[in-house]
Amino acid sequence: MAVRNIKLTIHYDGTAYHGWQVQPGVDTVGGKVQQAIETLTDQSVKVNGSSRTDAGVHALGQVANIRIDSPVPTANLVKALTDRLPDDIAVTEAVDVPDTFDAISDTKSKLYRYSIYTAPVRSVMDIRYCWHRPGKLDADAMAAAALLLIGKHDFKSLAGAADDRENSIRTITHCSVVAEENRISIEVAADGFLYNMVRNIVGTLVEVGRGRWAAEKMKDILEAKDRAAAGPIAPASGLCLMRIDY
Amino acid sequence: MAVRNIKLTIHYDGTAYHGWQVQPGVDTVGGKVQQAIETLTDQSVKVNGSSRTDAGVHALGQVANIRIDSPVPTANLVKALTDRLPDDIAVTEAVDVPDTFDAISDTKSKLYRYSIYTAPVRSVMDIRYCWHRPGKLDADAMAAAALLLIGKHDFKSLAGAADDRENSIRTITHCSVVAEENRISIEVAADGFLYNMVRNIVGTLVEVGRGRWAAEKMKDILEAKDRAAAGPIAPASGLCLMRIDY
Repeated sequence: MAVRNIKLTIHYDGTAYHGWQVQPGVDTVGGKVQQAIETLTDQSVKVNGSSRTDAGVHALGQVANIRIDSPVPTANLVKALTDRLPDDIAVTEAVDVPDTFDAISDTKSKLYRYSIYTAPVRSVMDIRYCWHRPGKLDADAMAAAALLLIGKHDFKSLAGAADDRENSIRTITHCSVVAEENRISIEVAADGFLYNMVRNIVGTLVEVGRGRWAAEKMKDILEAKDRAAAGPIAPASGLCLMRIDY
Repeated sequence: MAVRNIKLTIHYDGTAYHGWQVQPGVDTVGGKVQQAIETLTDQSVKVNGSSRTDAGVHALGQVANIRIDSPVPTANLVKALTDRLPDDIAVTEAVDVPDTFDAISDTKSKLYRYSIYTAPVRSVMDIRYCWHRPGKLDADAMAAAALLLIGKHDFKSLAGAADDRENSIRTITHCSVVAEENRISIEVAADGFLYNMVRNIVGTLVEVGRGRWAAEKMKDILEAKDRAAAGPIAPASGLCLMRIDY
């Protein structure tokens, strides 16, 4: 039979992993998924993951495509792969897609969520999934600053130093800051993200929230096109890749 | 100065621990709390915890009292102890109490919550805090059975075999079953619990929920006063001690 192209949706708690990308000698989420598929199908496979999430970053909607020569129905694939994965990784969906589908280059939009926990004492059941930053933050000011990020901009000031892509122009379609008791949730959707971009956005919004900068400062930060103009990077633990649209 | 009696409220993710009770040679939550206090105060201390939660059981409201000869203000104690504890344990409150207060014998009521996750694929961020039991459960039938537990009864049928206390009569004041999408939450409050009682209640309610038994069967189970009459024990991971009232 012909080789099939299958799109997988993958959830993970990234705490225990050196990120998504397969690397020799260390545990990575992509490496675990690859092992599960190879054990199941007895074939070498490349797991083409859409987002190279960093160490400690989580996902409730990573997408990858794989090419396998196997008749296994996609409904069975979800259970068969999840059964072969550690508890902190799960395949939640598998669908056959046209041979041309590529999880990286066909991405139209990604949505990330970042969670900040602001109570004085850490939350023991949530410490892996948030940035515990005790102290009040002005969520209204953060939301005002977030609005200034929406649109097509050069996000060079908010890209990690390791990101040497020449084109740092991206379009943010959604950027919201929602405060609940002891918690601030930040959501950012864009057509693509530069290296560490969400964590740098969050770190910068927190500088606004704690009153170091006015919300309007976000304009100057974008115009500076200089990483040093923005705030510090927020920790990986609070970040979760929520959804990828094609 | 005089020895103070201090009441501590303690939260923990019990996944990594051999339960609450201090045991030589293994990591226990009570042992970690004891170490933190001894490191801080340079005194030997006994941590008198109200509930001897089992391995893998969590708490968002364990209570213990300690006697220390130290002038440290209780407000500072919360931070000082939490800073000396692993990330999965936190002291959330410390208050000076009368010398007569005893966290075990003064307990008036305890509230436990149990969480069942029913979707086909596990939830990677919640797997430590629930029983992943794929498949539909009849929450209405479970709620009807739960109502039959409320009141003063002999709960011998729902006590773990290791519980040899002669008096197995307890009063359940609240027992509810709430269904949300893919999740069932069971809450039980009582003046006291026998060994494994909540997990045996949950395992029995699930037998009702999956249609093996009618809700009314719960009466027969109580009357039998025989552990073999009830359902199997539910896993530790879904159980959380929520509150202790004095």
